[in-house]
Amino acid sequence: MDLATLARNLQSGDRRSLARAITLVESARKDHRAQALDLLQMLGNQKQALRIGLSGTPGVGKSTFIESFGLMLTAQAKRVAVLAVDPSSARNGGSILGDKTRMERLARDPLAFIRPSPSQAQMGGVARRTREAVALCEAAGFDIILIETVGVGQSETVVAELCDLFILLLAPAGGDELQGVKRGIMEMADLILVNKADGDLKSAAMRTCADYAGALRLLRKRPQDPPGYPKAMTVSALEQANLSLAWTEMQALAEWRRAQGHWATRRGQQAQHWFGEELRQGLLAVLQQEPTKGIVAEHGRAVAEGRTTPEAAARQVLTLLHRL
Amino acid sequence: MDLATLARNLQSGDRRSLARAITLVESARKDHRAQALDLLQMLGNQKQALRIGLSGTPGVGKSTFIESFGLMLTAQAKRVAVLAVDPSSARNGGSILGDKTRMERLARDPLAFIRPSPSQAQMGGVARRTREAVALCEAAGFDIILIETVGVGQSETVVAELCDLFILLLAPAGGDELQGVKRGIMEMADLILVNKADGDLKSAAMRTCADYAGALRLLRKRPQDPPGYPKAMTVSALEQANLSLAWTEMQALAEWRRAQGHWATRRGQQAQHWFGEELRQGLLAVLQQEPTKGIVAEHGRAVAEGRTTPEAAARQVLTLLHRL
Repeated sequence: MDLATLARNLQSGDRRSLARAITLVESARKDHRAQALDLLQMLGNQKQALRIGLSGTPGVGKSTFIESFGLMLTAQAKRVAVLAVDPSSARNGGSILGDKTRMERLARDPLAFIRPSPSQAQMGGVARRTREAVALCEAAGFDIILIETVGVGQSETVVAELCDLFILLLAPAGGDELQGVKRGIMEMADLILVNKADGDLKSAAMRTCADYAGALRLLRKRPQDPPGYPKAMTVSALEQANLSLAWTEMQALAEWRRAQGHWATRRGQQAQHWFGEELRQGLLAVLQQEPTKGIVAEHGRAVAEGRTTPEAAARQVLTLLHRL
Repeated sequence: MDLATLARNLQSGDRRSLARAITLVESARKDHRAQALDLLQMLGNQKQALRIGLSGTPGVGKSTFIESFGLMLTAQAKRVAVLAVDPSSARNGGSILGDKTRMERLARDPLAFIRPSPSQAQMGGVARRTREAVALCEAAGFDIILIETVGVGQSETVVAELCDLFILLLAPAGGDELQGVKRGIMEMADLILVNKADGDLKSAAMRTCADYAGALRLLRKRPQDPPGYPKAMTVSALEQANLSLAWTEMQALAEWRRAQGHWATRRGQQAQHWFGEELRQGLLAVLQQEPTKGIVAEHGRAVAEGRTTPEAAARQVLTLLHRL
C-alpha cells in the first residue's frame, strides 16, 4: 500500500491502518524513517484530541482504571486510544504496559485502540515514537488519547511534555505514604485519583485522598490552574465509582484552559521542546555512524589506556568531524 | 604570569597558583578555555591522589565531618583538597557547598585546600570544571581529594564518575529512614558512615547503621568489592570518634582495588565516560553559537506557532547545519 492510501485510510479511522502507521514510526530502518516523516507531514496536525497522561506505580490498578474509564468513554460514543511510555521496556527490550491482555474488554471495543509500548534502545527513542503515535491517533480522529506510564521519574517528564492533562493514580496507603511520591511528580499533577476506594480500603483511600489534597494546597499555584485545582479525589475502577465525576473534572479543566489560552500556549511550548530534543538527537546521531563511530572507539581506547586525556581526545575528534 | 610558570608553581604545590589555575578552568571565556586546555596538557596526569566522593543531604553534618576528617589527615602530614559539586548552584548561580566559612580550621591549615563549587549554567559544565579541578589538585601533589555533593541524584552520578571511593554520609533516623535514600545511591556507596553517633543520638545511630548494614547485604555483589564490603559504620565528626577507623577502611579498600587491578580499570572507564561527555557537549555547543542559534530560535517560533512540525523543523535545521 502506498503512503497516500495509508494516510487516507488512517484518516477515515481504520484501526489496522493506524496500527501499521505506528509500526512504521517505530521502525529504526532508515527508509522506514523517511516514509514515517513523509506520512506525518501528509497527515498534518489539524485534529486535536484530549491527551491525558496517566502515571501510577505498579499495583495502583492502572490497567483496571484504564479499562473502566475507557469503557465509560466509549459508552458515550467517544473514541479512545491508549498508548504507553514504558521505561522498563527501554532497558529490557520487553513491553509490560499497555498490554491488551490486561484490558480485554476495552481491547475488543470497536471505539478503542490499544497499543503496547514499543521496545526501544533508549528513552529519547521511546519519547519520539510515542509522540509520533499520538500524532497518528489524532489524525485518525480519536477524541481521547490516554498515555500511561509507570512512576519512575524520567518517563513522567516525557509524558508531561506529551499531554494536556496529567493524572496521578495512587493506591490507598497507611501513614507515611506521601513520602513515596516525588515532589516533582506531585507538581506535574492536574488531578490526583486515589483508586481502590472500595470494600475494606475505602476509608484508607479517603484518608490518603485528604492527605494529598492537603499536600496539593501547599504547592505553588500554577497559572494554568483555575481556582480549586489541582484536585485530589477517590475513585474505584473496580466498582466504576466516581469515574464520571473524574471525567467531568477533566473536561472542566480542559475547557477552562482552552478558554484562557493555556491549552494553545502549552501545546506550542511542547512542540518547541520536542523540536529541541529532535535537534539534539539529530546532532548526536553522528556518533553512531561510520566513520565517526570507529574514530570515537579508537580515541576511546587511547583515553582508557591513559595515552591521552578526555579533553584532548574530544578536541581531536571534534576537529576531525568539522573536516569530514 | 605565563602558563609554563603557572604550571611549575602549581606542581611545586603553591596553593595560590592552584586557585588561579582552577579559576582559569572555570572561566567560560574562549581564550581562557584554550589556555586551560593547554595548561592541563602541560601538567599531564602522572600523579594520582586518592579521590573520595562524599555524598550527604543537608543536615547530616557534612561540613563538620570534612573539617574533622580533613584535620585528622593533615595531622598525619597528608595534603588534602576539598572540592564541591553543587547542583543547586547550577540552578541558582550561587554556591552553598565547600564553603570555607563552614570549615574555618581546615581552611587555615597549610596542608589543606578548599574550593567552593563554581556557579555554572548547567550540570555538564559543573562536571567538567570539577573534573579539571581534580586534575589540577593531583598535579599540585595533593594526597587526598574530597569531592563533596548533596544527595539529589544527578550530582551523585557525576561524583561517582570522578572518584575512587564513594562515601555516603547519613544522620541517625527513626524507623522508616531507609526509604529516604534512593536505591541507586546505595548501590554506588563503598562505605556508609552514620554520623552524629554521639550524645543522645548514639543509640539511634547504631540502629540506623545496623539497618543500612542489612540493606547493603541485600545488594548485588560488585566485582570491585573485597569480602565484607561495602560496609556501614558509625562515626562522630563532633567527637572525632571512629574517623581513623573509617580512614583505615578507605585505605584497605583502595589498596585491595589497586592490587586487583580494579583501580586502574575504573580510572580508564571514567576517562572514557568523560571523553564521551566532552564529545556530546562539544557537538551540542553549535546550538549556542551564531548563526545556528538564530536559525534555531527562528524555527522554534515557527514550531510553537504551529506553522511546522517539530520533526520537519529539526530536519531542516540539521540539513542547514551540514551545509554551513
